[in-house]
Amino acid sequence: MSEFISRQGGNIINADQHSSNPEGGDFFIRLEFCHESSLAEMQEQFKPLAEKLSARFSFVDKNKPLRMGILASKEGHCLNDVLYHYQSGQFHVKIPFVISNHKNLEDLVSRYGIPFYHIPASSQDRREGEILKIVKEESDFLVLARYMQILSPKFIEAYGRDIINIHHSFLPSFKGAAPYKQAFDRGVKVIGATAHFVTDDLDEGPIIEQVVSKVSHRDSVESLMRKGQNLEKQALAQAVHDYTEYRIIRYHHKTIVFS
Amino acid sequence: MSEFISRQGGNIINADQHSSNPEGGDFFIRLEFCHESSLAEMQEQFKPLAEKLSARFSFVDKNKPLRMGILASKEGHCLNDVLYHYQSGQFHVKIPFVISNHKNLEDLVSRYGIPFYHIPASSQDRREGEILKIVKEESDFLVLARYMQILSPKFIEAYGRDIINIHHSFLPSFKGAAPYKQAFDRGVKVIGATAHFVTDDLDEGPIIEQVVSKVSHRDSVESLMRKGQNLEKQALAQAVHDYTEYRIIRYHHKTIVFS
Amino acid sequence: MSEFISRQGGNIINADQHSSNPEGGDFFIRLEFCHESSLAEMQEQFKPLAEKLSARFSFVDKNKPLRMGILASKEGHCLNDVLYHYQSGQFHVKIPFVISNHKNLEDLVSRYGIPFYHIPASSQDRREGEILKIVKEESDFLVLARYMQILSPKFIEAYGRDIINIHHSFLPSFKGAAPYKQAFDRGVKVIGATAHFVTDDLDEGPIIEQVVSKVSHRDSVESLMRKGQNLEKQALAQAVHDYTEYRIIRYHHKTIVFS
Amino acid sequence: MSEFISRQGGNIINADQHSSNPEGGDFFIRLEFCHESSLAEMQEQFKPLAEKLSARFSFVDKNKPLRMGILASKEGHCLNDVLYHYQSGQFHVKIPFVISNHKNLEDLVSRYGIPFYHIPASSQDRREGEILKIVKEESDFLVLARYMQILSPKFIEAYGRDIINIHHSFLPSFKGAAPYKQAFDRGVKVIGATAHFVTDDLDEGPIIEQVVSKVSHRDSVESLMRKGQNLEKQALAQAVHDYTEYRIIRYHHKTIVFS
Repeated sequence: MSEFISRQGGNIINADQHSSNPEGGDFFIRLEFCHESSLAEMQEQFKPLAEKLSARFSFVDKNKPLRMGILASKEGHCLNDVLYHYQSGQFHVKIPFVISNHKNLEDLVSRYGIPFYHIPASSQDRREGEILKIVKEESDFLVLARYMQILSPKFIEAYGRDIINIHHSFLPSFKGAAPYKQAFDRGVKVIGATAHFVTDDLDEGPIIEQVVSKVSHRDSVESLMRKGQNLEKQALAQAVHDYTEYRIIRYHHKTIVFS
Repeated sequence: MSEFISRQGGNIINADQHSSNPEGGDFFIRLEFCHESSLAEMQEQFKPLAEKLSARFSFVDKNKPLRMGILASKEGHCLNDVLYHYQSGQFHVKIPFVISNHKNLEDLVSRYGIPFYHIPASSQDRREGEILKIVKEESDFLVLARYMQILSPKFIEAYGRDIINIHHSFLPSFKGAAPYKQAFDRGVKVIGATAHFVTDDLDEGPIIEQVVSKVSHRDSVESLMRKGQNLEKQALAQAVHDYTEYRIIRYHHKTIVFS
Repeated sequence: MSEFISRQGGNIINADQHSSNPEGGDFFIRLEFCHESSLAEMQEQFKPLAEKLSARFSFVDKNKPLRMGILASKEGHCLNDVLYHYQSGQFHVKIPFVISNHKNLEDLVSRYGIPFYHIPASSQDRREGEILKIVKEESDFLVLARYMQILSPKFIEAYGRDIINIHHSFLPSFKGAAPYKQAFDRGVKVIGATAHFVTDDLDEGPIIEQVVSKVSHRDSVESLMRKGQNLEKQALAQAVHDYTEYRIIRYHHKTIVFS
Repeated sequence: MSEFISRQGGNIINADQHSSNPEGGDFFIRLEFCHESSLAEMQEQFKPLAEKLSARFSFVDKNKPLRMGILASKEGHCLNDVLYHYQSGQFHVKIPFVISNHKNLEDLVSRYGIPFYHIPASSQDRREGEILKIVKEESDFLVLARYMQILSPKFIEAYGRDIINIHHSFLPSFKGAAPYKQAFDRGVKVIGATAHFVTDDLDEGPIIEQVVSKVSHRDSVESLMRKGQNLEKQALAQAVHDYTEYRIIRYHHKTIVFS
């Protein structure tokens, strides 16, 4: 690999690697390098080596911002946090749109000069066709910033790119609806938030980041929610950051995060 | 309450209280006080007030050590930690016995001058009668320091006192067997350990304490186990400490921990 | 106390108490109650009891929002987070103004309909007179949302009310300037953020809340800053929340936080 | 590197690398590999390449246990924990001795069949000559398991190998004596423990591992100590584990931990 890069006039800046199993497992590598050849050329010239190694690979240009589409519902804490990170230059992305099934976040989005689409999806009428049209055309990946509608397997397949969700519990605990209520009822002493990739299987996708916080019998459902929202923001921001720097590799039902 | 105590010539040293719901919920109070009357007298004289308040109550002598029975299996990290806390005076208890279905921990236990009973219980032959005889007679509560046999509802009822278990996962995630393997397979980014009271419902009893730690894709099942064992020790030690200071109140499926 | 409240036709909803030392220490209590008498009346009638107990006390109306003045500089992550919490109703406050020694945050503040004062204070020209005039008149307490100017002891005394600061380190580690750089240079494996009251002694005021996160040799100063900013937001939000619910009692150089 | 190893008939099992600065910084690599040539041969044959790269390197045999000498004082919680990890096979080491300036831990040590030397060092009479004689002869590295005497720069130089200490605070906070008392007095809301290499500069050596836990105004010095001891054990166990697997590289005043 390093030989290949140096032959292309490149110079490795950063390297991370991992093997799923030292003996006969899969091997993962992330190389950051400057280069003289064009990406297209390198892509082409790397093919024979990749074939020899039975390796999947992709060359990407770190300087070209990804287009991050956002879906949200009523609660805006994650959206607000993501937008602020974006505006202050901490996420190297473009945000082509925010889609919501509610109208209350329109103001917030407009302030950032980002197009806002109100598509009142519901479990009865998912409006997935409309959504799909926009996201396929305008985004490289999606972030569900507390989007409270379920995306159908058909939608996920048709979109065909990565979708990052923030779930308001420490998965696999408390899947499904009202996780803070579930956490309160179970009497846990620690709560958490989980950023994960969306798959057909609800709340079962590969976990990217988890953040936790101690709680006690003194906490109400409301205080769990309040504390949890800060965890959600933190987990989602870290996941988006790592994703946009191409630090995350999906591997079966897990992730490798070179952070 | 405070009036009652002062009328008995008592003096409140510490007070903790909690209400499950400010409006019409249940109210809990823990009072630490020195007193002149005997506990038996106070117990008797408090009855009318308790009846008036429909309150359950108990007066206990903090200076009288509880008898803590221990059940263990093959892995000794929790047992070793509990015994060390005991010996160094951090748990105000007596340890009348350690029962194990394996023999390998006998040496460790004997060094502390504690009787060791080898009762080779298995899922085929639970030997609960033998165990019950010992624990009923000699212990005020039980600690399962990684005891890998399931106690039957019948046993739990017949014993009739508190049983504290340490589960090697962040409950309710990864109930049942091999939680570190489950955590590895799910690809979580945080692992945990949970100390809880044992009920008929396996791994569903009231949670006392949870301790967590960040992990990553670099962790193997083995390193999760190694890191997890330190969490188990920490959660169990905190739970036993709080229990022996009467800081834990069971309330439906939850705990109030005045720590 | 409870007798006094019930005599006023009041009803206790929540009670928290703490004693600095069970034997002869100071005793603290926070009572939340509904009442029939006016606060002024209760205040008056409580005086004799308070004198008898040598107690300091205050009766406050939880429903009347406090006026929270904000000072900021260039970095807006904390300000943005505080404003969002405010707008979404999570802080029960009014925000009469944001003062900054820079202009870049004016847009953000204006979107929330909050007056923005640009007072270009610097270490050469602190402009404290101007600031003091505004804050004395319009605020009940101040939040320094990453305000990078030092407030003089004279200013603090003249203001005479609480000032909450967020320091971007785990105090008492890394006081003063550039704490993330200091943390990087020292090679710590955990970073943190600290919300505290401002006193004459820079970075030495009573600590309200601390939040921490694991880091490693892979982190650069930049990634420490990025991760740290999420901690800062979390610590400050918790501190403001607890403060506005009157859950914090200052006691010498420490705080009691009834959360 | 990989070419070199494969030319020796070796096969890389694990690789970790880090660069202090992608552009012109230092580069670190840890390679785990099986090999056919002897270590001595490889060592010899690698020299020219190392010289060319101006690299420092060492080849070690992972299967050969290091000799870990231990110094302790009166408190045994860390010692007990380390000994248990050792006995249960979690540390791949030999423990040739425990030296203490007190006698109370002799029993504990003897149970593990480990020689115990009582050398009553004090600040007046450090007895470093005696200690040095033992440790130089019998150990590859030292662990200070709450050894409460300061080792002189002269001793450290004369020993010339790594010394790992556990400090009972979240360094650089609360250096020196009685850190839990210091933490209590300062009113921190999080406490920690730090495993670090010993250098001439007291409590300033490269940090290996830090573990933290939330505390509150309810904690006394005693409860901070109790909670802290669990953190100390956890940090020290992780540090020793990583050290004995050669996962730690010292680099100026910092560490790289390939865990």
